Amino acid sequence: MTTESPTHVPTPDADLAMPAAATDEARTQRTRERLTELGAGLRAATGGRYGPVRDQARASLPATMMVRDPAQTVPEAREWTRRALRDVVETGQAGSGFPAAQGGLDDVGRSCVDFEMIAHGDLSLTVKNGVHFGLYGGAVTALGTPRHHEQFLPPLLSLEQIGCYAMTEFGHGSDVASLETTITYDKETDELVVHSPTPSATKTYIGAAAEDARMAAVYGQLVVDGTGHGVHVALVPVRDETGRPVPGVTLGDNGAKGGLDGVDNGTISFDQVRVPRSMLLDRYGGIDDDGTYVSDIESDSRRFFTMLGTLVRGRICVAAGAAASSRKALSIATRYAVRRRQFAAPDGADVVLLDYLTHQRKLIPAIATAYAHTFAVNEVVERLQELHELPQKDQEAQRELETRAAGLKALITAFTNDTVQVCREACGGAGYMAENGLTVLRGDADVFATFEGDNTVLLQLVAKGLLTGYKEMWGDMDTAAMVAAGARMLGQQVLEATSVRPLVDRLISAAARRSEDQTLLDRGWHLSMFTDRERHVLETLAGRLRKAQGDDAFATFNAAQDHVLLAARTHMDRVVLEAFVAGIDACEEGAVRETLERLCSLYALSSIEADAGWFQAHNRMSAARAKAVTAQINRLCGELRPVAVELVEGMGVPQTWLGSAMLEDVERWTPGAQEA
Amino acid sequence: MTTESPTHVPTPDADLAMPAAATDEARTQRTRERLTELGAGLRAATGGRYGPVRDQARASLPATMMVRDPAQTVPEAREWTRRALRDVVETGQAGSGFPAAQGGLDDVGRSCVDFEMIAHGDLSLTVKNGVHFGLYGGAVTALGTPRHHEQFLPPLLSLEQIGCYAMTEFGHGSDVASLETTITYDKETDELVVHSPTPSATKTYIGAAAEDARMAAVYGQLVVDGTGHGVHVALVPVRDETGRPVPGVTLGDNGAKGGLDGVDNGTISFDQVRVPRSMLLDRYGGIDDDGTYVSDIESDSRRFFTMLGTLVRGRICVAAGAAASSRKALSIATRYAVRRRQFAAPDGADVVLLDYLTHQRKLIPAIATAYAHTFAVNEVVERLQELHELPQKDQEAQRELETRAAGLKALITAFTNDTVQVCREACGGAGYMAENGLTVLRGDADVFATFEGDNTVLLQLVAKGLLTGYKEMWGDMDTAAMVAAGARMLGQQVLEATSVRPLVDRLISAAARRSEDQTLLDRGWHLSMFTDRERHVLETLAGRLRKAQGDDAFATFNAAQDHVLLAARTHMDRVVLEAFVAGIDACEEGAVRETLERLCSLYALSSIEADAGWFQAHNRMSAARAKAVTAQINRLCGELRPVAVELVEGMGVPQTWLGSAMLEDVERWTPGAQEA
Repeated sequence: MTTESPTHVPTPDADLAMPAAATDEARTQRTRERLTELGAGLRAATGGRYGPVRDQARASLPATMMVRDPAQTVPEAREWTRRALRDVVETGQAGSGFPAAQGGLDDVGRSCVDFEMIAHGDLSLTVKNGVHFGLYGGAVTALGTPRHHEQFLPPLLSLEQIGCYAMTEFGHGSDVASLETTITYDKETDELVVHSPTPSATKTYIGAAAEDARMAAVYGQLVVDGTGHGVHVALVPVRDETGRPVPGVTLGDNGAKGGLDGVDNGTISFDQVRVPRSMLLDRYGGIDDDGTYVSDIESDSRRFFTMLGTLVRGRICVAAGAAASSRKALSIATRYAVRRRQFAAPDGADVVLLDYLTHQRKLIPAIATAYAHTFAVNEVVERLQELHELPQKDQEAQRELETRAAGLKALITAFTNDTVQVCREACGGAGYMAENGLTVLRGDADVFATFEGDNTVLLQLVAKGLLTGYKEMWGDMDTAAMVAAGARMLGQQVLEATSVRPLVDRLISAAARRSEDQTLLDRGWHLSMFTDRERHVLETLAGRLRKAQGDDAFATFNAAQDHVLLAARTHMDRVVLEAFVAGIDACEEGAVRETLERLCSLYALSSIEADAGWFQAHNRMSAARAKAVTAQINRLCGELRPVAVELVEGMGVPQTWLGSAMLEDVERWTPGAQEA
Repeated sequence: MTTESPTHVPTPDADLAMPAAATDEARTQRTRERLTELGAGLRAATGGRYGPVRDQARASLPATMMVRDPAQTVPEAREWTRRALRDVVETGQAGSGFPAAQGGLDDVGRSCVDFEMIAHGDLSLTVKNGVHFGLYGGAVTALGTPRHHEQFLPPLLSLEQIGCYAMTEFGHGSDVASLETTITYDKETDELVVHSPTPSATKTYIGAAAEDARMAAVYGQLVVDGTGHGVHVALVPVRDETGRPVPGVTLGDNGAKGGLDGVDNGTISFDQVRVPRSMLLDRYGGIDDDGTYVSDIESDSRRFFTMLGTLVRGRICVAAGAAASSRKALSIATRYAVRRRQFAAPDGADVVLLDYLTHQRKLIPAIATAYAHTFAVNEVVERLQELHELPQKDQEAQRELETRAAGLKALITAFTNDTVQVCREACGGAGYMAENGLTVLRGDADVFATFEGDNTVLLQLVAKGLLTGYKEMWGDMDTAAMVAAGARMLGQQVLEATSVRPLVDRLISAAARRSEDQTLLDRGWHLSMFTDRERHVLETLAGRLRKAQGDDAFATFNAAQDHVLLAARTHMDRVVLEAFVAGIDACEEGAVRETLERLCSLYALSSIEADAGWFQAHNRMSAARAKAVTAQINRLCGELRPVAVELVEGMGVPQTWLGSAMLEDVERWTPGAQEA
């Protein structure tokens, strides 16, 4: 361990935050990629506050760093990833989220964008980077004190000391409060004893544990003087300078996985491993010099979930990374579909895959949803940084952000898994060849459904946040409390959540003055359908829990679980739509805005179509209207078809990052092809 | 090449077809697996005509042959698969479909079951086996004449001469009629000249081409005396005895894929390669001794699709293999879910994952669908053999079978891809570890959506078959013809398709005498909902095409494409439900039948729930009824929960074939666990 200055600390580059420089950068970028006017405009409109950072990443990250040879063996992939991580540090894309005192930019929002940009390339690199800087580094930063920052951040930033994040155990994944690892304070020696008491207490799936990690941020039950204080985090060296496990630490390799071949996930178990008391990350709770446990937060559970709450960035990063993955997959499949011919039209006309309605229905509504997610992710990333910049923490706003991050993570990762598979199939046999870029992406992105919280569990947390008005969200998954919360819930606060509320209210009330035969493209109608669906689902859920109060809490909660998930999902759908509306509102009139309006309508109508059963069953939509929605979706697909390539450009993944041989070797894959 | 008797021809074993022996076998099997009474009963009920064959496979195929180490590199996986293929031949599981004259059983139905049973294990082995015996062997058998059988089947059956099936080209996958490879007859030398005229004519994704194949069944445009006769198949040696490519043949390796690491897919291109005229597989069209083209079928297109029709077995095998994969994934996830604990119930009660409604909703309706597919696959496999045994070919029955095979393949492979992913996620991080059996399965099964026809194209063929009453199904995807067919269509013949029609009619008319408040479990109501949905969709499709006659055929067809897919899907849903009903009808009263009735209701209601929007929009279901359907699904999940392990046993995948470490190492993965 060293406290010397690291050699490769990224240099803050003030220019990057300046619009003028950014515009220059965007201009260079546009020339380099030869974007269409509309494509460039869409990219700018979806860039948000960090648009310039994104432009800079596109201009500076080389394709060699973004695309890994899919034929690599696991050892080769790990070695490639290890080197690429060093290259990332060289480019300065790694320090954004760290305190300025340690050479960072103190910009946690930007650190999410850094993660997202790398995710357009290789996900092993993204995750390897995310584990070290985001999870390990994030724990040291958020749960440690300046003392820890000074000691551990410099070697972290220079990659001298690779860290891992040892939370999950074989026995406990979602239920982190029940972890079995113990961190026991030994007053005699003023040390912490870290121990794995059972086989199921072994830490597992820990990124970097199998080969590279020297340090681990270990989650375990803190016991001081015989009393448990809930889960805390201690830094524990796991390998010595030569890379050998330290005494008492047993390290294993998780071996082959469904993807992420470049990440060395492994297991860790501890046999009475001793570290100094100072290794406890004690920002929220620690042991004073008298050997007494001290914390400003009385409840063990609340303290632990406050600690977890500071790590909200991880979920935002996963949401952003998954959104990037869906954009990449859609970029590959759409670029292929505008070239690939199968079957001739009866009159011999030039027909490519994307001219078929069935193919349009596979890709174009998904592109619309990907745009919606882009706006929603931008909003939450920017919100993260806004809250970070506040001089005083706003607890309610923080919890609302946590709710939204959990929900977006669940929503977007599920969409991404579906979409990558649709794209794979839309490219036929070519889609199954690793050299065309979709199968590795599919295998890698898959785990986002599990990382940083199982999607089903996260949606339950969202519902809990809604039911309690964000007051009790980070209590554990105590079903009785949730039932009680539902009983108290008033059903109003849920609609106060987004910044675009006045605009939304104006659009809705304009729509309400008209009858159902108004245009299907009326944004106010879309918003009122989304809002009404959410409100009704949540109110009936609260009523159901209220009625059942006093009954068996588990049985009540369990019977309502599908209702709980629906509440979370409809809430998040509304949040996403409003983010899209706010994004459009920030655009000037013109072709870009018109295109975004079409995409937004397509997104909204696709959601309404998917829930057509619900809307009719709840008398929110007539049978005729339900049929008209489907017809309108088909029309929108046809209208957007001619600008498919522009839509792809707007999604912001440079073609050189796609790593898709079939898009390069045009002669072989698409006889007689030309760009549509 | 040799015409000597092969050394490893499987010996036909008459005992296998005998019920008595089969019952003994089943009894042994049951003891070995220690099945529950209900589990054994469900397995017997889903076994069908080939139940004894399945029991024998379970008893005789060793786990070492069924489970591959997922950590293998591609070269290791290919070597493992090569050896396992030899082991399969040793067990005699490979010759069922070949003529008795060459030592086969002449049982094409059984050959599908052989494929299906291996698919419960490793899919690389399944596909490697299927390419050689099913595709290459099937082409020689079905498209060749006894002369070809005598010469090529013995070395094929002994694995002396590995074959591949060279149909797909880079430029043409779904549109096989437009393949660019040419097979030109040279009268001077009485030879065929096989040639790849363009880069896009290169054969690709060809299983066994990269390393093992000596022979290729090559699809190409036959040209005789300057006249094209459409696509025909010629046998072309591609490697010599030492394994080197023969002159004029260029072989490539497709490299890494999304799965099937053990299959050596590759590319083949031909530079004026000459073979004797006798190498043309000329059962449906050939060249006589005068050098004149002769065929009993006048239309090139009809002849080609007749040739393809004989290869219907491939699609049935893929449907069966995909169904087996979904059963395997559900077996793993369910066995995990009855042991794994996360979170405690408020009263400290013992709660495992499968006790949660959300978890039940993920797995139990999917199990019900997997049972439905099992019955539907059995039906089509048995029908294949029945038609094969007819002394005179029944052309209409054959086309109906082709329609059903195409539809089942599309339906089941899509379900399987979804389901394997759901199962992966339902096992959390453990599901992502290759050693637990789900990720390799996911990557391998994926390509079934593309193999043997893209699912979207296949569903269009199903619709075409329905619209034409199976009269013109295997014309090419000529959109004008399809529009015209729709215009002529009477809308009746569609409902004559299944063997269980009298029973279905009786159940429907009993249901029709009651009102909508009849029980949601009434099979007649389910059947009438499915039948009515299909009829309405098909009639309105025909009406739409009729109205549009004379307009631009492509535009008309294209605008109706989603309607076309819906027609195909609703038809197949009805076929599957009727297969389930027929399967139950064959059971005696008792616990097995009651369980199947519940599963069938769950399958039917899940389909109705998924289409709740359609049913309400078309006034087939009230709002109240739509809500009641969802509640009934939840109730059925709860009723089936206690017999989850029995349902898994009934799906017929022995636990030793699951290849899932977490099901073995119970202590580590499921602290305090016991079988539920």
